Amino acid sequence: MADATATSYQLLDGKKLADEIKSEIAAEVSGITAGGKRAPHLAAILVGNDGGSLTYVGHKVKACEQVGFKSTLLHFTDTSITEEFLLNEVKKLNEDPEIDGFIVQLPLPKHIDADKVLMAVDPAKDVDGFHPVNVGKTTLGLSSFVSATPLGITKILERYNIETSGKHCVVIGRSNIVGRPISILLNGTGKTGNATVTVCHSRTANLKEITLQADIIIAALGKPEFLTGDMVKEGVVIVDVGTSRVDDPTAKAGWRLKGDVNFAEVSKKASAITPVPGGVGPMTVVSLLLNTLKAYKQHA
Amino acid sequence: MADATATSYQLLDGKKLADEIKSEIAAEVSGITAGGKRAPHLAAILVGNDGGSLTYVGHKVKACEQVGFKSTLLHFTDTSITEEFLLNEVKKLNEDPEIDGFIVQLPLPKHIDADKVLMAVDPAKDVDGFHPVNVGKTTLGLSSFVSATPLGITKILERYNIETSGKHCVVIGRSNIVGRPISILLNGTGKTGNATVTVCHSRTANLKEITLQADIIIAALGKPEFLTGDMVKEGVVIVDVGTSRVDDPTAKAGWRLKGDVNFAEVSKKASAITPVPGGVGPMTVVSLLLNTLKAYKQHA
Repeated sequence: MADATATSYQLLDGKKLADEIKSEIAAEVSGITAGGKRAPHLAAILVGNDGGSLTYVGHKVKACEQVGFKSTLLHFTDTSITEEFLLNEVKKLNEDPEIDGFIVQLPLPKHIDADKVLMAVDPAKDVDGFHPVNVGKTTLGLSSFVSATPLGITKILERYNIETSGKHCVVIGRSNIVGRPISILLNGTGKTGNATVTVCHSRTANLKEITLQADIIIAALGKPEFLTGDMVKEGVVIVDVGTSRVDDPTAKAGWRLKGDVNFAEVSKKASAITPVPGGVGPMTVVSLLLNTLKAYKQHA
Repeated sequence: MADATATSYQLLDGKKLADEIKSEIAAEVSGITAGGKRAPHLAAILVGNDGGSLTYVGHKVKACEQVGFKSTLLHFTDTSITEEFLLNEVKKLNEDPEIDGFIVQLPLPKHIDADKVLMAVDPAKDVDGFHPVNVGKTTLGLSSFVSATPLGITKILERYNIETSGKHCVVIGRSNIVGRPISILLNGTGKTGNATVTVCHSRTANLKEITLQADIIIAALGKPEFLTGDMVKEGVVIVDVGTSRVDDPTAKAGWRLKGDVNFAEVSKKASAITPVPGGVGPMTVVSLLLNTLKAYKQHA
């Protein structure tokens, strides 16, 4: 008989939660359109034919369809388009009253200044939450568009009733799109806030000493199976943001997604843990939908 | 004979450092004006007659004079001025090519929405660094105006060669004007960055356990002499941001400034420590001058 404590963790099922939230959004959109109003409308700009980018944008378009949003994909296959041309496309989307929000899929070709393009997006339509105004408002605790991954993490914590107030959260990684914003949110005064937050990164001297103190760990450093069982305490809550592709000849694609957490080891001590895949990933697309719905309501 | 270890700390003398930096700025301004160009120009908007605000603005105007900046004080003694009127004054300063930067001294009368006024300041002239665009850029690690107190703290660490990389910094307090931004800067990739940073606050459960681990403590919670000797480890670096007025019948003013740190106790264990007064305080005014000089250079 298996050791009961070894499998007593709660799986933080991002796939299931994402489906639930999509159903809620779909119901709300049905109500909106039944009342005679137009549906929310998300646009995406994609330049080139990067396989990853095509896949990501495809997921986003499909998710729009699932919830009844209108979506528009501006796909410029010619990677030699100028920055000026792209800035003009952004301007047109900014000015189009039928577009509630839009994203510019990264990466952009190297001759285009991505920061400049992202800065050109109207903050009121910046559903990716990458514009400094939205980052600044998030930092200041004001209403803003929070970018997809950190927003998705807060939704997981919220919906699974993970208490953050007064807890010690350790965030591993300090990227602008995950580590930094989630640390600010956990440390803020919002619903999934009021935690004591430590941000660790590649320069951290005594990482294990710190992770061993954590009540909640957000692993977002991008190193497959980095966080091992000996680095966490009993009862810890784990959110695994890693999505590294590792070679796997037995998989159909020749690779599999691996998180930053050694699931087999860490799940034995965790009270709750996200899987990879099926954890944070599905929640990021849903977060984009939530932001688009928010933008729609602000325009309406 | 006194115990030698009891007085072996380095005093992080903000007053002395502020004077040094002011001399450097004055020399630079002399060079600028000697070359026939106009001097940098800082403006301040002050509404009402709050004693504290008058004092602070007075310090800023005086500091401008000391370094050769031009300064303009728009003092509206009538607290019944409308928000619209004030927004129009902000607009005029935004549009005035002779003004490099300006501040709106807080607090404003209650009938005026301070957030709205601060949002109206051109980010390129926002030398207080309060506009969400500047907060966002700071958070993203982009060039920005960092607000005065956190900028002053980084200057103290930098000029006194306090190593932050790989160190564990504990920030007590999560305010938008001190705790939050300094934690972001210490955790960033800049000169005084690359630290492992823990942000503690009123909801932190085990504060002493955390402060005992700190290599550097930024105390910014606003409770006089909160941090005591038993809460810190030997060799810690202390930056005391507290400036509480406490009654003192023996003082001429009837009160004295007290920091958040029990200096007598903590200095016995610290390797370096800021005094109050004469530590962070004088550096905040200098930071405003540094930001104004930066704005001037960006305009020129």
